[in-house]
Amino acid sequence: MIKLTQTVKKGGCAAKVPAMVLKEILAGVKFPPKIQGVVIDGDSFDDAAIFKIDDNISIVQTLDFFTPIVDSPYDFGAVAAANALSDVYAMGGRPKTCMAILAAPMATMEYQVIQEVLQGSCDVIAEAKASLVGGHSIDDDTLKFGLSVTGLVSNDKVWSNEGARPGDVLILTKPIGTGTICAGIKKEFYTATEAHEALSSMKRLNNAIDFLSAEDLQHIHGATDVTGFGLAGHSYQVAKASDVSLKFNHKQIPLFDLTVASLKAANLTKAHRSNNDYTQKVLQFKNIEEVETQIYFDPQTSGGLLLSVSPESAEGIVKKLETAFPKTSIVGVVEKRSEFYVYVE
Amino acid sequence: MIKLTQTVKKGGCAAKVPAMVLKEILAGVKFPPKIQGVVIDGDSFDDAAIFKIDDNISIVQTLDFFTPIVDSPYDFGAVAAANALSDVYAMGGRPKTCMAILAAPMATMEYQVIQEVLQGSCDVIAEAKASLVGGHSIDDDTLKFGLSVTGLVSNDKVWSNEGARPGDVLILTKPIGTGTICAGIKKEFYTATEAHEALSSMKRLNNAIDFLSAEDLQHIHGATDVTGFGLAGHSYQVAKASDVSLKFNHKQIPLFDLTVASLKAANLTKAHRSNNDYTQKVLQFKNIEEVETQIYFDPQTSGGLLLSVSPESAEGIVKKLETAFPKTSIVGVVEKRSEFYVYVE
Repeated sequence: MIKLTQTVKKGGCAAKVPAMVLKEILAGVKFPPKIQGVVIDGDSFDDAAIFKIDDNISIVQTLDFFTPIVDSPYDFGAVAAANALSDVYAMGGRPKTCMAILAAPMATMEYQVIQEVLQGSCDVIAEAKASLVGGHSIDDDTLKFGLSVTGLVSNDKVWSNEGARPGDVLILTKPIGTGTICAGIKKEFYTATEAHEALSSMKRLNNAIDFLSAEDLQHIHGATDVTGFGLAGHSYQVAKASDVSLKFNHKQIPLFDLTVASLKAANLTKAHRSNNDYTQKVLQFKNIEEVETQIYFDPQTSGGLLLSVSPESAEGIVKKLETAFPKTSIVGVVEKRSEFYVYVE
Repeated sequence: MIKLTQTVKKGGCAAKVPAMVLKEILAGVKFPPKIQGVVIDGDSFDDAAIFKIDDNISIVQTLDFFTPIVDSPYDFGAVAAANALSDVYAMGGRPKTCMAILAAPMATMEYQVIQEVLQGSCDVIAEAKASLVGGHSIDDDTLKFGLSVTGLVSNDKVWSNEGARPGDVLILTKPIGTGTICAGIKKEFYTATEAHEALSSMKRLNNAIDFLSAEDLQHIHGATDVTGFGLAGHSYQVAKASDVSLKFNHKQIPLFDLTVASLKAANLTKAHRSNNDYTQKVLQFKNIEEVETQIYFDPQTSGGLLLSVSPESAEGIVKKLETAFPKTSIVGVVEKRSEFYVYVE
């Protein structure tokens, strides 16, 4: 049976171009003017773009694709879809249409493998109550798959990176550790059975919105999904956009059962280093063991939502989300902006 | 100076997965249900998807990316953008938001090359009065670039593949031949200067809509853009969806000055063969020289629009389009469905 991770050098979000490199490249490009209707674009490093259709409704748009992060073709398609759909949920939207991005070695890869990748993604798209409306496929040396996703959101219900307020409580809906565990899978250090917890978490849709009431949603001021730049990188982006500092309670960060052992076994990716570089001037650790600091740099694929919610509603929201996301936890608080953007203690 | 076409095996739309292969693969996949609002999806092989936002307006969505088809990074970005934006125009829409799809060998490619690719695309996006709102970039062995594009269209002004009516006249807005000429560039058979006509045509936006009046637009019943499956493949898709036959007047097909010479020099791609295979049972040639039949199988990158218009308005429309698309021609007629979907004589 084909083991997809053995066909590529880097898997999943770890293959993402590092944030600092991207920033340097983009600094040399003159972008088209922002047309009327564009509310959020790439400038704020938000999860997805927002384009106003009229006074009531906006489209939420995002695009994500990557090389295989897991060995099973079906799982790879499912993870890629959940990961791409996630950015729409992270803006408070509901996904509607998806287009597939497929690159595959057509001459050597069995069609069945490609079909399984597509089936995995289609099943997750169906779960999200969205449709697959098109896509593009090219012949390439290595497999890559992902989706361009468009959702709808009411103009007054957008969760942006800018919404975190001092006093808010931070909730994380999925455990951290997919980066190190997938590095372990790639090294054949873990079997799919051993890594089951991380695999099913990556396939899990971030549809927190489907488990909350309209009132709960009003208490959510901002959100992001934790992906390639790790908890440190994405927290930094939220803190900067909201002009606040985030303080994490290290003991409360939900982890997979394998996470710490895998980090101790030095199952690391290049992204652990680049995420550290990206945030080292803006993040302060207090009394955290060296190996455990990697938790914050671990590049997540299809990671959880980091929600910034009013303190009085936090426990109720956690309780509701636990039914679908069992390791949902209150992981910290939002404070007034101080010396560092992110604190871990 | 870097010559991008020398960094890849197949360039542009010639790297597209052949239609027949794609069909076989997709036949083995169970797609998510079509949700409310989806008017056109991948089923009809149309240029882009249509999703109704409300009773008045729909979004038009398409996604396209490929390997370098030309040597200059700036030109590659511009061609990729014009090519992706084209599908929105082919549905009668106006592009609004774009997201970039970038794969690049980060360790070996100079950032300046990537910046030029992005700049070329940004300049064309600006010309289309759209915005770049996001994207995704990964580290990969070879350069790939493209866009996911969303446009808006009034529900009653969609140009679908289904709209061609017997009695309509067919108008083609750009010359045919980018497939063979780009194959010649890749073999270093032509310099960029020699291939200038094809290069500027590929960079040219398909914004015919901007040159026509509201009345002209009412006379356009259907449209497609001619890309990777060639004039034969895309004509077949239109004929099948509209349940008509298309009859081309071979002498009227606009060509680049180099097209026939390049075909005679056997500058061919794999797609010439697969497009021939794709259409051989549905297309009839009458008295066409063997080498010239390749015109119909030539995979276009950023090819022109094939418009199906009422006969009384055809000449006026051609006259207006000629200011922007000098080789615009009346190339044939739409007839009642008969034995073949496409006739060339």
